[in-house]
Amino acid sequence: MDAIEIETVAEPTLSDPVLVEGLPGVGHVGKLAAEYLLEEFESELVRRVYADEFPPQVSIDEEGVAELVCAEFHAVETAGRDLLVLTGDHQAGSNAGHYHLTESFLDIAEGMGVADLYALGGVPTGELIEEYHVLGAVTDADLKADLEAEDVEFREDEPAGGIVGVSGLLLGIGRRRGLDATCLMGETSGYLVDPKSARAVLEVLEAVLDFELDYESLEDRAEEMEEVVGKIQEMQNQGAQMPTDDDLRYIG
Amino acid sequence: MDAIEIETVAEPTLSDPVLVEGLPGVGHVGKLAAEYLLEEFESELVRRVYADEFPPQVSIDEEGVAELVCAEFHAVETAGRDLLVLTGDHQAGSNAGHYHLTESFLDIAEGMGVADLYALGGVPTGELIEEYHVLGAVTDADLKADLEAEDVEFREDEPAGGIVGVSGLLLGIGRRRGLDATCLMGETSGYLVDPKSARAVLEVLEAVLDFELDYESLEDRAEEMEEVVGKIQEMQNQGAQMPTDDDLRYIG
Amino acid sequence: MDAIEIETVAEPTLSDPVLVEGLPGVGHVGKLAAEYLLEEFESELVRRVYADEFPPQVSIDEEGVAELVCAEFHAVETAGRDLLVLTGDHQAGSNAGHYHLTESFLDIAEGMGVADLYALGGVPTGELIEEYHVLGAVTDADLKADLEAEDVEFREDEPAGGIVGVSGLLLGIGRRRGLDATCLMGETSGYLVDPKSARAVLEVLEAVLDFELDYESLEDRAEEMEEVVGKIQEMQNQGAQMPTDDDLRYIG
Amino acid sequence: MDAIEIETVAEPTLSDPVLVEGLPGVGHVGKLAAEYLLEEFESELVRRVYADEFPPQVSIDEEGVAELVCAEFHAVETAGRDLLVLTGDHQAGSNAGHYHLTESFLDIAEGMGVADLYALGGVPTGELIEEYHVLGAVTDADLKADLEAEDVEFREDEPAGGIVGVSGLLLGIGRRRGLDATCLMGETSGYLVDPKSARAVLEVLEAVLDFELDYESLEDRAEEMEEVVGKIQEMQNQGAQMPTDDDLRYIG
Repeated sequence: MDAIEIETVAEPTLSDPVLVEGLPGVGHVGKLAAEYLLEEFESELVRRVYADEFPPQVSIDEEGVAELVCAEFHAVETAGRDLLVLTGDHQAGSNAGHYHLTESFLDIAEGMGVADLYALGGVPTGELIEEYHVLGAVTDADLKADLEAEDVEFREDEPAGGIVGVSGLLLGIGRRRGLDATCLMGETSGYLVDPKSARAVLEVLEAVLDFELDYESLEDRAEEMEEVVGKIQEMQNQGAQMPTDDDLRYIG
Repeated sequence: MDAIEIETVAEPTLSDPVLVEGLPGVGHVGKLAAEYLLEEFESELVRRVYADEFPPQVSIDEEGVAELVCAEFHAVETAGRDLLVLTGDHQAGSNAGHYHLTESFLDIAEGMGVADLYALGGVPTGELIEEYHVLGAVTDADLKADLEAEDVEFREDEPAGGIVGVSGLLLGIGRRRGLDATCLMGETSGYLVDPKSARAVLEVLEAVLDFELDYESLEDRAEEMEEVVGKIQEMQNQGAQMPTDDDLRYIG
Repeated sequence: MDAIEIETVAEPTLSDPVLVEGLPGVGHVGKLAAEYLLEEFESELVRRVYADEFPPQVSIDEEGVAELVCAEFHAVETAGRDLLVLTGDHQAGSNAGHYHLTESFLDIAEGMGVADLYALGGVPTGELIEEYHVLGAVTDADLKADLEAEDVEFREDEPAGGIVGVSGLLLGIGRRRGLDATCLMGETSGYLVDPKSARAVLEVLEAVLDFELDYESLEDRAEEMEEVVGKIQEMQNQGAQMPTDDDLRYIG
Repeated sequence: MDAIEIETVAEPTLSDPVLVEGLPGVGHVGKLAAEYLLEEFESELVRRVYADEFPPQVSIDEEGVAELVCAEFHAVETAGRDLLVLTGDHQAGSNAGHYHLTESFLDIAEGMGVADLYALGGVPTGELIEEYHVLGAVTDADLKADLEAEDVEFREDEPAGGIVGVSGLLLGIGRRRGLDATCLMGETSGYLVDPKSARAVLEVLEAVLDFELDYESLEDRAEEMEEVVGKIQEMQNQGAQMPTDDDLRYIG
């Protein structure tokens, strides 16, 4: 096996597709949003990407069948533009691994005709959110006007530490390749998997890519989380600690 | 030295051998089970695998003689099928190392005619076990019927985090190579080296590979552990903490 | 992308330039000092260095535009010698990464005619500083006399643990390449970003490289930090703990 | 710079030299012992080994001059056999690094005619030592008789965790190359730099390699440590904790 191995599953013809990335991160906002696109629209698995920088692990499906961890590209047809949606359960395990994976992801996307992309994620606020704002970052200031029209906020030097992981590199390396790249970050507490933040991000994407989503099942998911939040607030009132990352892994 | 170095110790002719892997992991279930096969059957060391991803370490034998850490393949003749048993004291030290080692292990096994394999391990339950169930995972749903006939359980999305390490990759990469691979995971508390869980796993293997084992010496080992468990329960009743991994290293 | 990628932004003609390095480190002394040179003098960005050993990250500027993390070389014209100033927000993420980056930095500098260099940094004292001394280390004992004339101190076996990171390697590898290299380390508590220590280092540099700086805006910065120090001392008097590295990241 | 770079400083003719290794480790026993050989006998620096797996660091000598961290080989003439003494301040920073460095060390030694070696180190007992025993490990059981005659002890499966680091690999890889390799491990508390344990190890080496050492200055060092031990025992009697590794770094 090479360090990164790309498996071609299907080779559909896409018309000016846009890459939409949603890998695990803060509040699993990007991952929830990207997976919701796959659930709601017709989609076709087109590429699997295996990498020795992913954890040495298989996932087990509902049938007990093992599958090597990988990232996946799905082609998604919408009323608006064609999407190429990148999802997965893992980021790379090292600095260099992140760079090499992102390069591969961009190679695949460009090979399928992608010239612009949206990286989806969350930005942690440290407190439970009342109103879900979406922060933006872009590779070219000209991209901002359309996003600001959809209430995406560009705040000076935010997020403070920059954007980390594949989302960040899709912008950083994408820019060096001359792609138009946008990062949409839903505000989220950072403590919980956050379907409401994912919805806020998707609503921006709907507007700028000109498709429409029904949020019913995402709402169901959000209501489940509300209950969890309610219980946590109760626990806090009784003096207990915030849940740790490990706790949340199970809630997620 | 190359990153991985394979030393050919013997070159026996095996008839349709099946690979059985038992490297260190939860409760040392896989390692105990695989080593028990070597103790109970006639076996011949056929390959040593050295890797710069193993700890930089020698083990010292009862004579004071040092040996570089390695993984070993033994050929084992049983009344049923020929076995190729993979054991060792270490896993790799990095994500990529796990992938590369597993590739080498599969290269060796395929080179000796292996077309199917069993990865043995434990699955932690967090509590002391009364009845030892064995969980399964496979690379092909067709493999399940024979295992279920031996009471191997396939539970939806279990183990939750997937299967990590060489056992997991033997399935993940094995599947990509077209091998039939099964992981047998004995339930175990996760706190102690668990010969009873190893026995549960071996009993499944006996049935599916059609050989017979005498469990006397494994029973002796289990009784020793029972005593340890008894002492720990006593300690717990007196309010002491569960032993740490480091404590168990010495018990193991 | 290669492991290290050098982007040529401009190709000015420099006359016997001297390399001045100020990457993040203790008290951010070197980084503050190097960046102050860029603020106070006319400077031109000449090289960007990208590396897969840097964090997988983009920084976001005041316009919301993302830029891949990199180190930068600026050409700086002074009344004295031409400077080539190396700055950035990150060091490498591994031992080998530090070595490879430093090699690249020296390749670039030598390619632009550099034969001598100053690595700027801080040396932690563990207590708030009254009088700011500057410690020196050199690649050749002959370099000491001029520095001692500017009150740079050479103390037996100090700093005790040697010099770590790019600054250290610029001396270590620079020496092996036959360059004259000096490390100037301003004493600093190690608890805070320290503009006063940066000034002490710059004053030595002024004298040995024969240029002049106005310290007004650095003084402003120092006064802000004084206030922070004042608050911390107050907190300490009330029994609170010293701020952690993470606290300081925000102060910095 | 390559991953490992070997600098030839001198090329003396050695007659059947034996490699003696003393890199940092438990109680700094091996390092103290090897450095004592360099102090007491006439020695000549013959090789420096630089590696990108060493810390990215320079050490500063008493003159303020920086030197890139490296391992060094010295040729040492004794009344008995010629020695090639390997010393340094660091081990490698990764598993693979340890393997690659050890290969280089053996390449150098074999290139200079070495066919047998002694790796010196300490074995931690966890308590202050009254009588200093020396444990042994060998690559060939035939090597034991001569060592046992000098009271070197071979205890079943000790040290329990095997031997880690360059010392271990010199035996493990050395054995695979057909070299005769011995590890001499002085018992030491593990809490302090231990010149007495170093002396115990050197006394074995004296006997087997047929040279003589005067231990006066090592005794001075040991007396200084006795005072430290006395103070620590006093502190313990007053309920204080054992010193940490960091504390000891300064004591060492």
